[in-house]
Amino acid sequence: MDHVYAPGKNHLFVPGPVNIPEPVIRAMNRNNEDYRSPAIPAMTKTLLEDVKKIFKTTTGTPFMFPTTGTGAWESALTNTLSPGDRIVSFLIGQFSLLWIDQQQRLKFDVDVVESEWGQGANLDVLAEKLAADRAHTIKAICIVHNETATGVTNNLATVRKLLDHYGHPALLLVDGVSSICALDFRMDEWGVDVALTGSQKALSLPTGIGIVCASPKALEAAKTAKSLRVFFDWNDYLKFYKLGTFWPYTPSIQLLYGLRAALDLIFEEGLDNVIARHSRLGKATRLAVEAWGLKNCTQKEEWFSDTVTAVLVPPNIDSSEIVRRAWKRYNLSLGLGLNKVAGKVFRIGHLGNLNDLQLLGCLAGVEMILKDVGYPVKLGSGVAAACTFLQNHIPMITSRL
Amino acid sequence: MDHVYAPGKNHLFVPGPVNIPEPVIRAMNRNNEDYRSPAIPAMTKTLLEDVKKIFKTTTGTPFMFPTTGTGAWESALTNTLSPGDRIVSFLIGQFSLLWIDQQQRLKFDVDVVESEWGQGANLDVLAEKLAADRAHTIKAICIVHNETATGVTNNLATVRKLLDHYGHPALLLVDGVSSICALDFRMDEWGVDVALTGSQKALSLPTGIGIVCASPKALEAAKTAKSLRVFFDWNDYLKFYKLGTFWPYTPSIQLLYGLRAALDLIFEEGLDNVIARHSRLGKATRLAVEAWGLKNCTQKEEWFSDTVTAVLVPPNIDSSEIVRRAWKRYNLSLGLGLNKVAGKVFRIGHLGNLNDLQLLGCLAGVEMILKDVGYPVKLGSGVAAACTFLQNHIPMITSRL
Amino acid sequence: MDHVYAPGKNHLFVPGPVNIPEPVIRAMNRNNEDYRSPAIPAMTKTLLEDVKKIFKTTTGTPFMFPTTGTGAWESALTNTLSPGDRIVSFLIGQFSLLWIDQQQRLKFDVDVVESEWGQGANLDVLAEKLAADRAHTIKAICIVHNETATGVTNNLATVRKLLDHYGHPALLLVDGVSSICALDFRMDEWGVDVALTGSQKALSLPTGIGIVCASPKALEAAKTAKSLRVFFDWNDYLKFYKLGTFWPYTPSIQLLYGLRAALDLIFEEGLDNVIARHSRLGKATRLAVEAWGLKNCTQKEEWFSDTVTAVLVPPNIDSSEIVRRAWKRYNLSLGLGLNKVAGKVFRIGHLGNLNDLQLLGCLAGVEMILKDVGYPVKLGSGVAAACTFLQNHIPMITSRL
Amino acid sequence: MDHVYAPGKNHLFVPGPVNIPEPVIRAMNRNNEDYRSPAIPAMTKTLLEDVKKIFKTTTGTPFMFPTTGTGAWESALTNTLSPGDRIVSFLIGQFSLLWIDQQQRLKFDVDVVESEWGQGANLDVLAEKLAADRAHTIKAICIVHNETATGVTNNLATVRKLLDHYGHPALLLVDGVSSICALDFRMDEWGVDVALTGSQKALSLPTGIGIVCASPKALEAAKTAKSLRVFFDWNDYLKFYKLGTFWPYTPSIQLLYGLRAALDLIFEEGLDNVIARHSRLGKATRLAVEAWGLKNCTQKEEWFSDTVTAVLVPPNIDSSEIVRRAWKRYNLSLGLGLNKVAGKVFRIGHLGNLNDLQLLGCLAGVEMILKDVGYPVKLGSGVAAACTFLQNHIPMITSRL
Repeated sequence: MDHVYAPGKNHLFVPGPVNIPEPVIRAMNRNNEDYRSPAIPAMTKTLLEDVKKIFKTTTGTPFMFPTTGTGAWESALTNTLSPGDRIVSFLIGQFSLLWIDQQQRLKFDVDVVESEWGQGANLDVLAEKLAADRAHTIKAICIVHNETATGVTNNLATVRKLLDHYGHPALLLVDGVSSICALDFRMDEWGVDVALTGSQKALSLPTGIGIVCASPKALEAAKTAKSLRVFFDWNDYLKFYKLGTFWPYTPSIQLLYGLRAALDLIFEEGLDNVIARHSRLGKATRLAVEAWGLKNCTQKEEWFSDTVTAVLVPPNIDSSEIVRRAWKRYNLSLGLGLNKVAGKVFRIGHLGNLNDLQLLGCLAGVEMILKDVGYPVKLGSGVAAACTFLQNHIPMITSRL
Repeated sequence: MDHVYAPGKNHLFVPGPVNIPEPVIRAMNRNNEDYRSPAIPAMTKTLLEDVKKIFKTTTGTPFMFPTTGTGAWESALTNTLSPGDRIVSFLIGQFSLLWIDQQQRLKFDVDVVESEWGQGANLDVLAEKLAADRAHTIKAICIVHNETATGVTNNLATVRKLLDHYGHPALLLVDGVSSICALDFRMDEWGVDVALTGSQKALSLPTGIGIVCASPKALEAAKTAKSLRVFFDWNDYLKFYKLGTFWPYTPSIQLLYGLRAALDLIFEEGLDNVIARHSRLGKATRLAVEAWGLKNCTQKEEWFSDTVTAVLVPPNIDSSEIVRRAWKRYNLSLGLGLNKVAGKVFRIGHLGNLNDLQLLGCLAGVEMILKDVGYPVKLGSGVAAACTFLQNHIPMITSRL
Repeated sequence: MDHVYAPGKNHLFVPGPVNIPEPVIRAMNRNNEDYRSPAIPAMTKTLLEDVKKIFKTTTGTPFMFPTTGTGAWESALTNTLSPGDRIVSFLIGQFSLLWIDQQQRLKFDVDVVESEWGQGANLDVLAEKLAADRAHTIKAICIVHNETATGVTNNLATVRKLLDHYGHPALLLVDGVSSICALDFRMDEWGVDVALTGSQKALSLPTGIGIVCASPKALEAAKTAKSLRVFFDWNDYLKFYKLGTFWPYTPSIQLLYGLRAALDLIFEEGLDNVIARHSRLGKATRLAVEAWGLKNCTQKEEWFSDTVTAVLVPPNIDSSEIVRRAWKRYNLSLGLGLNKVAGKVFRIGHLGNLNDLQLLGCLAGVEMILKDVGYPVKLGSGVAAACTFLQNHIPMITSRL
Repeated sequence: MDHVYAPGKNHLFVPGPVNIPEPVIRAMNRNNEDYRSPAIPAMTKTLLEDVKKIFKTTTGTPFMFPTTGTGAWESALTNTLSPGDRIVSFLIGQFSLLWIDQQQRLKFDVDVVESEWGQGANLDVLAEKLAADRAHTIKAICIVHNETATGVTNNLATVRKLLDHYGHPALLLVDGVSSICALDFRMDEWGVDVALTGSQKALSLPTGIGIVCASPKALEAAKTAKSLRVFFDWNDYLKFYKLGTFWPYTPSIQLLYGLRAALDLIFEEGLDNVIARHSRLGKATRLAVEAWGLKNCTQKEEWFSDTVTAVLVPPNIDSSEIVRRAWKRYNLSLGLGLNKVAGKVFRIGHLGNLNDLQLLGCLAGVEMILKDVGYPVKLGSGVAAACTFLQNHIPMITSRL
């Protein structure tokens, strides 16, 4: 039996790992299989084809590594770059910080563009750097689409525009861990060269697949990139793609079936409807935060994230206490503030397979917790604000008409 | 794939079948087994012992029939009564009505005491009948503890007091389908002769076990009761109890393991805490209903049910439309009004493995639906009322301290 | 954790409950649902239509009771007969015995035709009785298609021929518990009036659905049958069939989804292929028994059962010890000898979702056990005999070509 | 529904991924959880402690990477070695070949000691190299304990003796992927510096955890090793071990619970009993192969593997056809011959959660397939040989006494 049992469902509102839909849990409830039988390659083929849709790419080549987002980062970098390569990377929160740490340890020459946590990537600085880089010493731009620690969404379309404007050939590498399949993401249209996500985020699976999608230009770079790599090497995969067996080493049978089911659900709902649902839940959350009289960690509306909201608490309150209390009294899992914003923000993850009433239960819980810790919230205020918006915007469930 | 898929969790608030805890779903996720191996009788023995605790009986004998509540009713009646026997039975809603229909079709002489739907059993009439029945022609009193159709809880302690007061030997047969393991129920203290429930109610299992618990006096009656029965016969079970093999026919292996897990969870939480949780959720629901300006179908506080609340809607609204909309727009399952109260009430089931934030999500949903159908509710009002109460009463989760 | 854990799979070869296919276990791995939502009736409708196919009937009406085979028996009897009705019933083993016991306790006038255990129903006696019954006092013939205790399959076509020959209007009630969906069974062609089975047999589900299928003539009889019944009453179901809600009380959501998956698998394999597979496994088992130098409890080839083989052991061996040892040393579940053949036979169930190599593992196990208990078996002999037959008869797996 | 459905269980006898015990499948049947809540670190702590037992180490430090065996290899190498370091590595089959390929691509100076496939590592050559290496230029010895492609088990105790004899300080890195938790493996006693395995092998889990265990000497080496690494870096883990949160990035919640259950089962059976079971099944398999008149790919008894048997087929037979037929006709999954032995051997994996009757079913299947492809096998011969041995050696199941 679980050591930490509590009655009822756990309300899982961390920004990952997120709630797995019941049909996906069912699909994964199975014994192992021989991955060299004809069945697994046949299914893998459909997965590789379908997974491109969530990146909105037709020209990209996806790789489904048995790893996490951190591994996917490593795969993106080591397949396209060589030690010493200059890259521009944006530091706007804990996850961009960790990626930069990885970039540095992999011996790239990282040109860090830092913003205050709560702000987006400083694209003016990018423009300056691109303008100045006539010699094209910058080999890649590394940017997180959505910084999970602060709830900040960067504007990738602008990044592309700048690169095009300056005719700069740098690769565009994007961490889409908390965005792809939840936010509007357009790999082909935005000329992203490598995009990546993890299975436990908007795909609503367990942790275990790091999906990396490479543009033709990125694949070309992989032919000459000198970073050492074996486990994360795209070329090994490409060799097995050609053979039609697809796997250089053993994949998780369960996760493949789970991914198949997850994609089926996403396509049944419609990817654009999935994105619209995230947009609606994000807006509702922000309306509640406003009604509580609290501030969003994200400083401007243009950066508001529809997958995670980091809520600033007043200085006299420790946000960690809110997270602890959520778990200990309400069976609610919220995200901690990390690093620079530890103690200052708590995070509500609203991504993945989630609906409106689930979010409203969470918001009601947050209100009670705020009162618990001494913040003078008017109980019901956030839920009221969210409901007022939602009642006008929730669509009918198509399959039930 | 399911035909009626919707994103996120289904919010299941019908008064049965109710939400199954994840550890119980896990426990049932298994292949069949030989039920004649030593393992199943050994487990059955623990179940028979432990299931008595949820009836609060030490002297009762439980039977776990592979059936539903309707079958459990039939078992209670046919094992203790003979065709033609006079019984007093209370009609206060759809489920007491169905039980009475069964009693009549099984050819008992049913003395029906009817109340307006929304009221409890008329115990004054019972007193009169007992007083008048010097000859003890009444063989049994049949009463539902909690009428699921109207959300009315009858006062069983008073029934016992009346029987004792008049020194009347009638058997006391109680339908505890939507009460046992959720409401305060005391088989031994209240001198209940047969009590019964179904697995899909407060035990939070799938449908499939009808649990019937018989007092020594009921077992005695079973020796001479002339109602024909085989499948539902207690004596067949008693024969196998003596043999130590326990089962006259094949039980569901999965449900036995599920029941084991369910009882373990209930005992881990503590039965009294389970009951307190239901009391809290019932109160919160009623506060929300009041805040919405709506009336409870239950006419007096003494009958308020902590497992189901039937909400009266204004005459211009069809309550069925509320239930339909809940399902079609909010992935929320509410209970319909049945029979006499069809179209007039909708029901919120708040029994079984459920916690506060789940209920609040439901209440927020109901508010939006009310607005959808044209009722001028103030969004957030019910949630606010519920939260104000709950924030003062939710206990810390013991296993997490 | 299970108290009786052993490494590897349990080899389940009792004649029920039988192995559940993994896709069916998956389909049942789910939370409860509101059975009054549109989803459940829609699925129920497909089930009622499809379940007729396994009875090979187009004119029959199926009922899926939340009960066991014993309950299905009771439903068959009480819906078609009145107390005092004369019925002819064949006693050829423990399960026919139990059904007769039920018939007697339900107060029918049972004309028992007994055979030695190991023989089929004595149809000569039936012929005599039908010939003599000019007044048509016999209201029903009750017969088990396949006696699970002895592995004897009765010839239903002959029963029908006799009834037709004598122009006798008696109803033909058939226990198909260990035959339907495994043996050749033809409800319409053989003029069966009520046929029944249980979900945990050839359908390869958990226990919990007793499926009863009634001919138009049986439905007609149900209008006047005077046996008291409520839970098992077909008429209640028919009322709800008309309403399109299908369920007079709460079904098991999990079993409905499980039945849907089970039928899908059966139709994917093809019902006739399912039957051919049982025929092949039955034959292989009998060849092994012969190779061991042991006798089949079934005395003539015409009665050999393709779902269960009861093996006679030499007088100096206690067959119960074989079953005990199978479980305690080999993680193999075999069937005990019951009642008259207790200690004298052990049973190998080979029905349900089972393939050739599974059976061969079982047969190899039985050989070792026979040696364990002192029977001078030549190890490998039974497997060799079975393989010699099987290697010529196993078909290619269609879905893998 | 699965595209390649076949009736009955799939008989999974590839040497990985292997059969998952039902209790482990159950344990993994769950939603995601917040891995930063107190529950996951608490469980992780017990896992790290208990996982050491399967390596037979008290001084080692385990790392549970979300990766495969290939990733575990990379972690072992990059944490202990620097590019250019000289290592001695033994090529005896496909998996040692792949590891050597990795070693070369990671830019180590690999001194490859090749043996004919079917032979073990040439330890005489190792002795020579160690004797010659007075300057201790050899930084590590890399060896697979059990080569999965040929079924060859190397003698690690001798490797240690040689290192000790020559007082050589080289690190000893061992691939225990198809040995640990199945074969006799003694990390501390044999002075292994890094040992590793994958969850989908003898631990009988899905793919997804690469467990790497490092000796104090290996940890010391990790402080100075210059190979670039981030995802696979032990030091990141060690930092989080100190913090008590354990995870530098998101683990798979499901696999952690699965590993907990898997270890519980292994300890319940007893690790030495698990190893004895593998020894028994290995011996039984080899006896069958001998009875069929076929040769083991492994050329000497001292190298026989108890986890996988590679069977040589006569030159006129294509072993791939055996594997194809196994899958297409018998629902049996066997291992292909790889690379140099492609078409020449097929492999029977007999590792993980497996029992005797399962193996016997497989062996019976192989016999029929051999006949299918024209090899003149005497049906039953292999099973007879295996049974004769097994019937004398299978222990009683402790939990069932």
